[in-house]
Amino acid sequence: SRFEYVRTFELPDPLLNNTFVVCRVDGRTFHKFSDVHEFEKPNDKPALDLMDRAARAVMDELPDVVMAFGESDEYSFLIRRQSNLFNRRRSKINSTVVSIFTSAYVFYWPQYMTNTPMQYPPSFDGRVVLYPTEKEGTDSKDKNELLFTQFGINYNNISPQFRKGSTLVRVSPEGEGMAESVTPHGEAGPSVPRRAPVSPAPEVVAQAHGDGVQGEADEPGGEAEAEAEAEAEAVQDASVGDAEVEPKAGVEKKKLGWREKKAKRTRPYEGITGRVVVLHEDIIGDKFWALRPWLLS
Amino acid sequence: SRFEYVRTFELPDPLLNNTFVVCRVDGRTFHKFSDVHEFEKPNDKPALDLMDRAARAVMDELPDVVMAFGESDEYSFLIRRQSNLFNRRRSKINSTVVSIFTSAYVFYWPQYMTNTPMQYPPSFDGRVVLYPTEKEGTDSKDKNELLFTQFGINYNNISPQFRKGSTLVRVSPEGEGMAESVTPHGEAGPSVPRRAPVSPAPEVVAQAHGDGVQGEADEPGGEAEAEAEAEAEAVQDASVGDAEVEPKAGVEKKKLGWREKKAKRTRPYEGITGRVVVLHEDIIGDKFWALRPWLLS
Amino acid sequence: SRFEYVRTFELPDPLLNNTFVVCRVDGRTFHKFSDVHEFEKPNDKPALDLMDRAARAVMDELPDVVMAFGESDEYSFLIRRQSNLFNRRRSKINSTVVSIFTSAYVFYWPQYMTNTPMQYPPSFDGRVVLYPTEKEGTDSKDKNELLFTQFGINYNNISPQFRKGSTLVRVSPEGEGMAESVTPHGEAGPSVPRRAPVSPAPEVVAQAHGDGVQGEADEPGGEAEAEAEAEAEAVQDASVGDAEVEPKAGVEKKKLGWREKKAKRTRPYEGITGRVVVLHEDIIGDKFWALRPWLLS
Amino acid sequence: SRFEYVRTFELPDPLLNNTFVVCRVDGRTFHKFSDVHEFEKPNDKPALDLMDRAARAVMDELPDVVMAFGESDEYSFLIRRQSNLFNRRRSKINSTVVSIFTSAYVFYWPQYMTNTPMQYPPSFDGRVVLYPTEKEGTDSKDKNELLFTQFGINYNNISPQFRKGSTLVRVSPEGEGMAESVTPHGEAGPSVPRRAPVSPAPEVVAQAHGDGVQGEADEPGGEAEAEAEAEAEAVQDASVGDAEVEPKAGVEKKKLGWREKKAKRTRPYEGITGRVVVLHEDIIGDKFWALRPWLLS
Ligand SMILES: Nc1nc2c(ncn2[C@H]2C[C@H](O)[C@@H](COP(=O)(O)OP(=O)(O)OP(=O)(O)O)O2)c(=O)[nH]1
Ligand SMILES: Nc1nc2c(ncn2[C@H]2C[C@H](O)[C@@H](COP(=O)(O)OP(=O)(O)OP(=O)(O)O)O2)c(=O)[nH]1
Ligand SMILES: Nc1nc2c(ncn2[C@H]2C[C@H](O)[C@@H](COP(=O)(O)OP(=O)(O)OP(=O)(O)O)O2)c(=O)[nH]1
Ligand SMILES: Nc1nc2c(ncn2[C@H]2C[C@H](O)[C@@H](COP(=O)(O)OP(=O)(O)OP(=O)(O)O)O2)c(=O)[nH]1
Ligand SMILES: O=P(O)(O)OP(=O)(O)OP(=O)(O)O
Ligand SMILES: O=P(O)(O)OP(=O)(O)OP(=O)(O)O
Ligand SMILES: O=P(O)(O)OP(=O)(O)OP(=O)(O)O
Ligand SMILES: O=P(O)(O)OP(=O)(O)OP(=O)(O)O
Ligand SMILES: [Mg+2]
Ligand SMILES: [Mg+2]
Ligand SMILES: [Mg+2]
Ligand SMILES: [Mg+2]
Ligand SMILES: [Mg+2]
Ligand SMILES: [Mg+2]
Ligand SMILES: [Mg+2]
Ligand SMILES: [Mg+2]
Ligand SMILES: [Mg+2]
Ligand SMILES: [Mg+2]
Ligand SMILES: [Mg+2]
Ligand SMILES: [Mg+2]
Repeated sequence: SRFEYVRTFELPDPLLNNTFVVCRVDGRTFHKFSDVHEFEKPNDKPALDLMDRAARAVMDELPDVVMAFGESDEYSFLIRRQSNLFNRRRSKINSTVVSIFTSAYVFYWPQYMTNTPMQYPPSFDGRVVLYPTEKEGTDSKDKNELLFTQFGINYNNISPQFRKGSTLVRVSPEGEGMAESVTPHGEAGPSVPRRAPVSPAPEVVAQAHGDGVQGEADEPGGEAEAEAEAEAEAVQDASVGDAEVEPKAGVEKKKLGWREKKAKRTRPYEGITGRVVVLHEDIIGDKFWALRPWLLS
Repeated sequence: SRFEYVRTFELPDPLLNNTFVVCRVDGRTFHKFSDVHEFEKPNDKPALDLMDRAARAVMDELPDVVMAFGESDEYSFLIRRQSNLFNRRRSKINSTVVSIFTSAYVFYWPQYMTNTPMQYPPSFDGRVVLYPTEKEGTDSKDKNELLFTQFGINYNNISPQFRKGSTLVRVSPEGEGMAESVTPHGEAGPSVPRRAPVSPAPEVVAQAHGDGVQGEADEPGGEAEAEAEAEAEAVQDASVGDAEVEPKAGVEKKKLGWREKKAKRTRPYEGITGRVVVLHEDIIGDKFWALRPWLLS
Repeated sequence: SRFEYVRTFELPDPLLNNTFVVCRVDGRTFHKFSDVHEFEKPNDKPALDLMDRAARAVMDELPDVVMAFGESDEYSFLIRRQSNLFNRRRSKINSTVVSIFTSAYVFYWPQYMTNTPMQYPPSFDGRVVLYPTEKEGTDSKDKNELLFTQFGINYNNISPQFRKGSTLVRVSPEGEGMAESVTPHGEAGPSVPRRAPVSPAPEVVAQAHGDGVQGEADEPGGEAEAEAEAEAEAVQDASVGDAEVEPKAGVEKKKLGWREKKAKRTRPYEGITGRVVVLHEDIIGDKFWALRPWLLS
Repeated sequence: SRFEYVRTFELPDPLLNNTFVVCRVDGRTFHKFSDVHEFEKPNDKPALDLMDRAARAVMDELPDVVMAFGESDEYSFLIRRQSNLFNRRRSKINSTVVSIFTSAYVFYWPQYMTNTPMQYPPSFDGRVVLYPTEKEGTDSKDKNELLFTQFGINYNNISPQFRKGSTLVRVSPEGEGMAESVTPHGEAGPSVPRRAPVSPAPEVVAQAHGDGVQGEADEPGGEAEAEAEAEAEAVQDASVGDAEVEPKAGVEKKKLGWREKKAKRTRPYEGITGRVVVLHEDIIGDKFWALRPWLLS
């Protein structure tokens, strides 16, 4: 940039190394926003699906975000401990996550909130919270304590309904580990068209193994889907040339020869490649974490 | 919020008191975004007007933002020195500004980029930079040095074209000082319909005193305008109940009795009430600042 | 304090919770200080003993410092992960540690550097470094990695001589665990009187189990020792009334009834009570850490 | 240093540029320390003189400290706005100031507290507070407000006795400006020998212009003075080779040729060269500051 003088007043804000980074976004005054747009109480399915879609946009653009967890008007993004995203600059991480989320929320609104025009642009605040590594226990109490710490979820005072919430993770491209069990069996769009459908959006609901798994591609097929794919391409290329952003999964994969592929296969899955899936399952118990050891590695 | 445990890991990040806060947002990989959407080179008028509109959304929602300055894909927001916005919490300020800006950019896109559908959701990064107060000089050199410092603009190595850029400030409701000279004489919409106009947007250009002043209401009249006003209302109410956000100008004004009005009139204008106007004039020279002493008070 | 206004410019600087805090002090320009005072090369025993004595003063005053490690003109202090010392305020911790160390270094100088008057007051800089918790491995490689991380010691490129260095830890008052093995068998003063002894300092060398253990009371017996004890008392009372400093070991112990004693006995030793001992043994291997699990708990 | 790994966890902590830095040290639990050493109430002259001596040690070693102000067990050090001392690293500045102060306090104790042996090593905490530049007013109210801000002194609620306190500044070597008026007319030692004098310390009191000015060299003449000078030399050389510390006044001056001298003479005095003097005069009024414009430049 031209304005070198600015640099002298801009101070560094790197995050401690080797520590979990959680970036949490929360809708600003969503009591009003949900009122104005007549969200169903207490949970408006299309609105929550839209939140999930916006969260996916964050994970699509930032591979180091290995997990996302949402409920109500907030979403927390777990950035893996070893990440060097934006050189771990706090403000850059925070603002980028909140901006991608906000942008996607407004951009995908018409696809989810069919028949409900957006009255005014909503906004979200964001913050970055650091969590030092926790001991890896073997029993459920330890896991709970970890979860409690990592996402601030105290499983004792949350309702069973909330325990599900929305969880986004990636599945290994090789279909290793738990991957197959969550690979979507069909393309899923917004599960319920809002009020009166205006476009012939096919209600393809994910047919996963009772886990509440929902497919990655939320966009309806046909023209819209093609556009969405074009968009995905665009997004994937978006950070080319930005030295601080790690290479995108898709882009990277295309360039791999068999040698690298083999090397990759032997390395344990890190959660930064592969499709993002939306889960609505229990993340309190051990099972979820045991199936995805990379999340807390 | 329920997650009290999170609080124990979330650390305070207050900004130094009595110091100018500049929040700067910059489009992420806009070389690509401008390519994909075929922005005119080097300056695409509708795209820049959209940037101005998004900046105005920030000022509409945050009265303590007393000035904004934009060029290319970036916008800087000056928060007045005495501000206690969000208790001066760095992350909250940064993320909120970047989110409002992003949201408005996507939301108002169709009004400005008519005939150019958005291909994918763009995002912006944000940062907060502090500037200690500068000596107030009397000659132009001092002013330039100040500007140089406050906005990182070095008037020596910028082109005359850029010297104009976009500047947003508020005008005093009482029409004091320089206010009259910039009060828009007509409602201005996007000055140039993009490619082929789809709606009968009236090209009402601001007829200000040769200053390149542009009216506040960028939306075309008729139904759209009514909607915009409804939206403005919505926005103004948006932060009610948020103790950290200072009361909105409009809301506040309505409640003033004659006593307070008088008190207010005797106090110098602070730049936090009144309409926001877009200027494309020179802010390098003394004139701009001399007319608006509150900006650096 | 009277100056409440100052408070508005003083900003909070709390350290991340549940993270190891290491405060490292280093002599300023000690190449010169060691020259001027004719330190023996490369290691001057009395000078290094004095460093150890100063480090012990830090541990005597701050129970949450559970270990100290020194070599050359620097000393690192490990504050236990759960510590709430000074509410984890970075500057307060850093400045207090560096000040206690400096003060003790100058105060005890005549007892160690007999016949070498101090020419000018030396000073130390200090810094606080955070370390997130590390996985607790079982093999030596893991321990080494941990040590490497916690104290920045890379065992590969340090000389065997240095591997010993000086290590200060506390021994459990109950004589549990490895405690007995390091309890000094005699009172140790500065082991070697400097140049020509001026006082009849008895050369009582610690007779520990081949570990290079050195007793706590470095002061020679007689009058000096009595004074030292009085001083120790004084130091122990020093922070009474300072709510942020945790109660001193000695003070606390005296007040314990049998009930508390029992409760305490059942709790594992935390390393914040008991006498401080100086070791010159290998802390690279597993043995040192296995004997003192509280150090990394 | 060898421990490169440590560097990866040590985070930068630079202070905002172009801002006044005040480092304040305060005796830890001095209610007890003053009791134990039977300080006179409310003010013990030798103890306060020792504080002044310790403060001078800080200014002697760090030329960018342009002023110091003390009362009771605390001392505040003003570092000039343009300073790049230790690259403006907060912890380095804070710990170094507190360590030099502490060291000098213990080192010079016998010279001031004659007949009162130090019972135990005292310590000080330290903190760094930033103050943005203030408007330079012309009337006394403005100056007071400035002082109020810069040193947290509210002249309304302090006793006249306190208004004097101790102030250390440097005098220009060229004897320019107010310099002559404060140049000590004689060498001053601790003004009052404590209880019973043990050495023949000559009571040479500074004969300044009724301002309570006290000479720089607090040490009594004869052997002690020679030693002190040797020490001063030692201190002055102490930081040679430390790239971050600015060159010492004395060292610098010796190297100046006539060309540089002339250049220097034409530049206004910056307060970083010349002798340090102790004042006990009013710093609330305009006079003090008007005579030393460099302090707030
Ligand atoms: N009806 C309905 N309301 C929802 C839904 N999801 C979120 N909300 C509303 C309920 C709450 O009033 C609000 C979230 O609470 P917050 O504590 O985040 O407060 P709010 O966003 O109003 O203020 P804030 O700016 O975050 O302090 O969003 C939904 O699915 N349906
Ligand atoms: N054609 C055209 N391009 C524009 C206009 N405004 C901005 N741009 C483009 C030109 C530059 O490539 C880009 C802004 O430069 P930046 O330094 O911000 O780089 P960019 O956003 O690509 O990457 P970044 O993520 O900010 O590091 O946006 C416009 O009005 N017309
Ligand atoms: N002769 C001798 N010198 C020692 C002893 N312990 C430390 N030193 C000296 C050797 C080194 O020159 C110096 C420590 O090196 P540092 O890297 O800390 O450099 P120095 O303190 O000179 O500069 P600094 O202000 O820390 O950057 O102290 C000792 O026992 N005997
Ligand atoms: N008798 C006497 N006492 C003094 C003198 N100067 C300072 N002191 C004492 C009076 C106060 O008790 C104490 C300073 O008050 P502080 O607020 O700094 O408290 P203190 O140092 O005890 O605790 P702290 O660790 O700073 O929180 O030092 C003096 O010249 N004579
Ligand atoms: O984004 P650039 O490369 O124009 O330059 P910058 O904004 O100073 O860099 P960064 O966004 O990484 O702070
Ligand atoms: O926003 P709230 O009131 O639910 O609670 P919070 O998010 O903890 O507060 P803030 O947004 O001010 O950090
Ligand atoms: O030390 P006190 O109690 O006089 O007051 P303070 O210095 O403001 O408190 P702290 O030393 O804890 O910052
Ligand atoms: O002091 P040095 O040069 O041995 O190296 P360092 O301690 O890493 O540098 P600094 O004291 O400037 O942090
Ligand atoms: Mg909130
Ligand atoms: Mg909310
Ligand atoms: Mg919420
Ligand atoms: Mg940039
Ligand atoms: Mg850009
Ligand atoms: Mg740019
Ligand atoms: Mg160093
Ligand atoms: Mg050193
Ligand atoms: Mg060293
Ligand atoms: Mg205090
Ligand atoms: Mg005190
Ligand atoms: Mg005090």
